[in-house]
Amino acid sequence: MANLRSEDTRRRLLEAATAVFAEQGFHKASTRTIARRAATNIALIHYHFGDKAGLYRAIFTERFKAHDDGLVPLIGESPTFATVYPRLVQRLLTASDDFRRVARREEIEPTGLLGPEWMQPLRRGHDLLVKSLCKELALAAPDLEVDRLAFTLVGMATIFGHNQHVIRQLAPGVLEPADWIEATVRRLTRQALALIESERKAREAARSFRPKALDPKGEPSLP
Amino acid sequence: MANLRSEDTRRRLLEAATAVFAEQGFHKASTRTIARRAATNIALIHYHFGDKAGLYRAIFTERFKAHDDGLVPLIGESPTFATVYPRLVQRLLTASDDFRRVARREEIEPTGLLGPEWMQPLRRGHDLLVKSLCKELALAAPDLEVDRLAFTLVGMATIFGHNQHVIRQLAPGVLEPADWIEATVRRLTRQALALIESERKAREAARSFRPKALDPKGEPSLP
Repeated sequence: MANLRSEDTRRRLLEAATAVFAEQGFHKASTRTIARRAATNIALIHYHFGDKAGLYRAIFTERFKAHDDGLVPLIGESPTFATVYPRLVQRLLTASDDFRRVARREEIEPTGLLGPEWMQPLRRGHDLLVKSLCKELALAAPDLEVDRLAFTLVGMATIFGHNQHVIRQLAPGVLEPADWIEATVRRLTRQALALIESERKAREAARSFRPKALDPKGEPSLP
Repeated sequence: MANLRSEDTRRRLLEAATAVFAEQGFHKASTRTIARRAATNIALIHYHFGDKAGLYRAIFTERFKAHDDGLVPLIGESPTFATVYPRLVQRLLTASDDFRRVARREEIEPTGLLGPEWMQPLRRGHDLLVKSLCKELALAAPDLEVDRLAFTLVGMATIFGHNQHVIRQLAPGVLEPADWIEATVRRLTRQALALIESERKAREAARSFRPKALDPKGEPSLP
């Protein structure tokens, strides 16, 4: 019972802190404001997180943990595109607005509190996606075109996660259906498969337009 | 000669201001710092822009003007996808890092200085893209699926413009070739055409799976 209550306080503090850091930024935000917003007291911030910096770090750690929970089981296996991409899209669409604002503030004015692990979940997602694309395209090893395709596929989803304020202004109906997240995951997956098919064809065309590469001597004859 | 020099000062002030607003935000930035950075004096800020707020607004006006110069001639005409999309992609890839930081700060903490025209170039780009997609898909009027496709196509390009710091960390080679912008415009245009084709097929499939809609009485027979 005590543990449940303690877990609940911790969660409320994380939510309140995300909202306050989003509005005011790390430096202006005070633990007093955060504690008041969470309807608890400053001592419990110190108990759970040490200090303001610890609380700030915990926001990112928790978010990354949520990110990774869906992907980590796939590492080591040989992940298929149909498994990896929908999970990536899902997580890109479901961050809270407050967390997004905190993350953007961190990008613009790094607090220096986060360290290199800030990039790790992004790298993990990218590597898994690249691996699954290599499988789809029957490539032994990734190349820059696969990296480019992976970024394109992430960009298609990111706009529906990070730019909702713009979408709401330009075409509000897009985000209104109750099932818009599931529908977007399905639609983007269908579109992604069309892009993989287009990449396969572009690679075939490049191969057949490079007859010199098929020359048994392996040397292009220069004019 | 005097006009040329004056135009040059104005341009230097805009560049210096973009850099200083990017680093410090609107409120902390001082006209003194901006003038020093532009190697000129505060009186010339007042002469060209009135005050700090005028200078801030001018940064956005100039950027939007650059945005629109490529697109406005297309309004009124019946723009084709092959004309609209490469120009949109080009402009998404070529904003300066400083301008991007200023725009992100404005998103997170609106200064209240910009007014609703802030959205206009985005709306203009979206409307032109939707119009050109309707033409490609032979639709008399746009629907939400066309809006969704338009956002997807913009997202594919946005990631290569706005998230260069992430791409540089994960796969630095992607942004290294001297012609990466032209190559990205070409590649995204090819991929966009594959998505339009996929949309066309999805619409055909939806039509043929809805036989009731073809019922001459125009009424679905409910069980």
